[in-house]
Amino acid sequence: MTTRYGYLGPEGTFTQMALLSWTASHEGEHVPFGSVDSALDALRRSEIDAAMVPIENSVEGGVSATLDALASGDPLVVIGEVNVPITFVLAARHGVQRADVHAVGTHSHAWAQVRGWMDRHLPHATYVPTLSTAAAAAGLAHGEAGHGYDAAVCAPVAAANHGLEVLAEDIGDRAGAVTRFVLVARPGELPERTGADKTTVMLFQRDDRAGGLLELLEQFSVRGINMTRLESRPTKDFLGSYCFSIDFEGHVLDERVGEALMGLKRVCAEVRFLGSYPREDGAQTDVAPLTGDADFSAARDWLRSLRGT
Amino acid sequence: MTTRYGYLGPEGTFTQMALLSWTASHEGEHVPFGSVDSALDALRRSEIDAAMVPIENSVEGGVSATLDALASGDPLVVIGEVNVPITFVLAARHGVQRADVHAVGTHSHAWAQVRGWMDRHLPHATYVPTLSTAAAAAGLAHGEAGHGYDAAVCAPVAAANHGLEVLAEDIGDRAGAVTRFVLVARPGELPERTGADKTTVMLFQRDDRAGGLLELLEQFSVRGINMTRLESRPTKDFLGSYCFSIDFEGHVLDERVGEALMGLKRVCAEVRFLGSYPREDGAQTDVAPLTGDADFSAARDWLRSLRGT
Amino acid sequence: MTTRYGYLGPEGTFTQMALLSWTASHEGEHVPFGSVDSALDALRRSEIDAAMVPIENSVEGGVSATLDALASGDPLVVIGEVNVPITFVLAARHGVQRADVHAVGTHSHAWAQVRGWMDRHLPHATYVPTLSTAAAAAGLAHGEAGHGYDAAVCAPVAAANHGLEVLAEDIGDRAGAVTRFVLVARPGELPERTGADKTTVMLFQRDDRAGGLLELLEQFSVRGINMTRLESRPTKDFLGSYCFSIDFEGHVLDERVGEALMGLKRVCAEVRFLGSYPREDGAQTDVAPLTGDADFSAARDWLRSLRGT
Amino acid sequence: MTTRYGYLGPEGTFTQMALLSWTASHEGEHVPFGSVDSALDALRRSEIDAAMVPIENSVEGGVSATLDALASGDPLVVIGEVNVPITFVLAARHGVQRADVHAVGTHSHAWAQVRGWMDRHLPHATYVPTLSTAAAAAGLAHGEAGHGYDAAVCAPVAAANHGLEVLAEDIGDRAGAVTRFVLVARPGELPERTGADKTTVMLFQRDDRAGGLLELLEQFSVRGINMTRLESRPTKDFLGSYCFSIDFEGHVLDERVGEALMGLKRVCAEVRFLGSYPREDGAQTDVAPLTGDADFSAARDWLRSLRGT
Repeated sequence: MTTRYGYLGPEGTFTQMALLSWTASHEGEHVPFGSVDSALDALRRSEIDAAMVPIENSVEGGVSATLDALASGDPLVVIGEVNVPITFVLAARHGVQRADVHAVGTHSHAWAQVRGWMDRHLPHATYVPTLSTAAAAAGLAHGEAGHGYDAAVCAPVAAANHGLEVLAEDIGDRAGAVTRFVLVARPGELPERTGADKTTVMLFQRDDRAGGLLELLEQFSVRGINMTRLESRPTKDFLGSYCFSIDFEGHVLDERVGEALMGLKRVCAEVRFLGSYPREDGAQTDVAPLTGDADFSAARDWLRSLRGT
Repeated sequence: MTTRYGYLGPEGTFTQMALLSWTASHEGEHVPFGSVDSALDALRRSEIDAAMVPIENSVEGGVSATLDALASGDPLVVIGEVNVPITFVLAARHGVQRADVHAVGTHSHAWAQVRGWMDRHLPHATYVPTLSTAAAAAGLAHGEAGHGYDAAVCAPVAAANHGLEVLAEDIGDRAGAVTRFVLVARPGELPERTGADKTTVMLFQRDDRAGGLLELLEQFSVRGINMTRLESRPTKDFLGSYCFSIDFEGHVLDERVGEALMGLKRVCAEVRFLGSYPREDGAQTDVAPLTGDADFSAARDWLRSLRGT
Repeated sequence: MTTRYGYLGPEGTFTQMALLSWTASHEGEHVPFGSVDSALDALRRSEIDAAMVPIENSVEGGVSATLDALASGDPLVVIGEVNVPITFVLAARHGVQRADVHAVGTHSHAWAQVRGWMDRHLPHATYVPTLSTAAAAAGLAHGEAGHGYDAAVCAPVAAANHGLEVLAEDIGDRAGAVTRFVLVARPGELPERTGADKTTVMLFQRDDRAGGLLELLEQFSVRGINMTRLESRPTKDFLGSYCFSIDFEGHVLDERVGEALMGLKRVCAEVRFLGSYPREDGAQTDVAPLTGDADFSAARDWLRSLRGT
Repeated sequence: MTTRYGYLGPEGTFTQMALLSWTASHEGEHVPFGSVDSALDALRRSEIDAAMVPIENSVEGGVSATLDALASGDPLVVIGEVNVPITFVLAARHGVQRADVHAVGTHSHAWAQVRGWMDRHLPHATYVPTLSTAAAAAGLAHGEAGHGYDAAVCAPVAAANHGLEVLAEDIGDRAGAVTRFVLVARPGELPERTGADKTTVMLFQRDDRAGGLLELLEQFSVRGINMTRLESRPTKDFLGSYCFSIDFEGHVLDERVGEALMGLKRVCAEVRFLGSYPREDGAQTDVAPLTGDADFSAARDWLRSLRGT
């Protein structure tokens, strides 16, 4: 049976590019969704087998829709990650010149990444928000008079897909901008341990614990575990109530990770395990001295001998 | 001379409501801006004297545009805060019924807060992003055919301002949703110390320090200081490079706060001080034992006597 | 076969009093030794089955001879503890008056505890060190001219045993002085877990670990474990090289203690487990929230479910 | 006027050797005392100007008498330190052979350091405690029949002083044994800052503070200060009540030390400052990154600018 991969569509989004770069997906079917939520809901309902969604951008930060969708509802886990360089073009219908552009359509995250260029080159253009960068291109290509903008900021592939002309290339304010995408699945067999793994969790604090975040971070530090991302998200209960979305180096099958997770499970109101998976860059985890599996095993054997068990 | 207060407009936004609830502003002039950036730029250029901008929402989390605009450029400081309960209505032009609604316009943050209601009551309506909730209402009121949506999600005041009819009230998925706004000014005289103060900083880590975030948080904990918000934001340099926007209890004139700030200044690559200001709720800071000004003064006097200075 | 209990003798020492108050020993044979070392050596050679030795005095601190003897050589473990109130008398042969006392014999630790009294009442008396307080009494009773002192500072029972007259009672400078003794045995079956237990360890740091003692103490604090005694002892390798003798609340069979011991085992050069045993005062350990066995078991079950094992 | 230096006598003790190696004392008068207490009392009464006393031995650990005498009573401060290699000889009167030795006199600390040698070479010799190693030699030289021992363990100089014959040289069980002595004075001008300094303090915990020792050590670690000695001493109030004698690198005039001391002053029940003084070995303190005086000054200037003061 064909594996079905959902992604944040429509065609031409950076998310689709992420999915295309996931080799294993080439055998499967690719299904676009209009939102992260709808893709993950379909995954939960088993209508698809996996979903590629953005989680973190080097300029705009965490992707709230993804973080929140993973944080509640039936459990899902990350099984892989893909980093995609983000390059924006300014695209328009055939015949439109840069001087003709009075309004620009794109997704708000993309807009945030090209404002410097816009200030310098099209200071009088107004901004029209769209649902995605690809939707901005599509709207331009297929739209009638009323879509309200003369040019779109989108990925080069989206401009090409829709037969638009590129008025300016590589207009992002930050060279080297990257978005990190994750491939999400229903819990099942864990991805194999490679020594170059990451684990993602969502931590909810107890109200009655002083120290709070510091206490949580110590669970990592006493086991020599390095965090690679920490994002606070509102629990939505009241202003100032936050939970923490965290990526750290290591696999749930690593001893130090297992002990840290148990520590977090004890001190947190809830720990949501969101998967262990190989890093895209393949960088082997630099295991801190005395925190390797052999160190933990030796300690456990010693404890057993003390206990006479 | 009249004080000029900027705000994230247009009229009818929740930000305007925040400014209206700031009593001191009633004597001044209120100037709408199209974005947080443009308001803060005007403030930096001294075209206005203060700006009210959103910083944190109980459902959607930190407001990236504000956090990032405060984190770079000429220094600005927060001088006050206002919390505004967020209530959404579904509004349309006279004569439109709920059954006629095929597309809904609103700001993406508002859409995120009413999706549950929409799924239950208008499951087939498509979403059209707009620049603000007030802009959605305005577009509906003044727009021609092409604006692309039949109803707007906005504040009750925006619906009233634009003569729209309310099709449904209080449609937010979370009762009690609140947005926190801050009044920003150029650095000048510090707001007076009230004993019920908050301080806001942006912390940039050094690359060469192990321990990272834990080391920063310890600077607070060893002085008994309580954090009320921590938000990570990308430095935009590369994926995985983050800085931290933090609110904590206390005023820069408090001894314990001064010492913590000096500690942070030493261990961070950069500390951006973003102001000390009275809490809106007036809740007096519960100063941890042995961290009051008198404790610090006594310790300093003792040290002086040891040093013979 | 009769159980043989060694103790730091001769008869009449506080150590003998400790052994006498250990009810289980009443059925056994009591064997005095001239030093802690010789008692523990006899225990290691299986010539005796247990040894009562002093470990800590409320005025003089840790008993180095005991701490060092436990820290090296074949492993021994503490299986019980006894606290004995320390009361000193000034005793002399029949007919000797206080005014006749020119020199006082006693153990140096006892002398340290009565110096205030001596300064006030016998300021001109010189001090003659003896091997134990009981030895001072014995020397006085049986000695010839040459023993060199006219009165002894000893336990009331030692004065009585040797037919000495008490010239002054309760002459300790600190009311409520107490010595804590431990009953030591060869490793065997662990004393039962009572919920009111202590565990004793000796920790040797690695040279190559920064942070040092702080890192060790964190292994306790992250599991909510309370230390009741910390004593540094030279490793004897070079000046400034120390190891740490530590008592803490809990039993090696407690989950939180097991995990803390494993953590210490990993980060220390060596951990010497010196036993888990019931507290004499029977005070139930106040287990910190979220550190009980049930909390650890639940966390372990959860981890197993994540790992699918 | 001649400076008067007290020391723990009599002549021939290792303490006298320490004083002799303190060059500045060569111009002054040297006054022996029978105990550490009596020397420090004379210093407090201004009968002498300084006192050399032992504080730490590489085999036997802290010298309780010194630690306790510094911890209470009128304030005294350490102004210098001297390390003396400890070498023991077995000495006897002319004509006595090793085979004739049935009893050996020496100070209990010395006895602890030669027991291995004794076990191997004079296993049947009994131990007779004396007030000091020099006193053992003196007793042997001048004593009548009754002194009770045939040989003394003492410093080579003491044997020579008293015309004794050396039966065995260098009989310490640990090669390289060292005792550290400190020169104590009444508080006055601080020793100059050399960059190779130590500071000594005695810390008394508050009963009402959880965390205890960990909280104290963090005051050092957050300022990058390295401890070189930690010794717990009973407060003498009740069993299990301890205070901590601590040496650490740096001078009270160093910024990081000043801030750490202020932190300790706040969280401790009492901090007894026992002096800042140059290390004997002249090893420059390896100041941790970002904890130098310049770092603290820059941070203070920055805070002042924030405060507008």
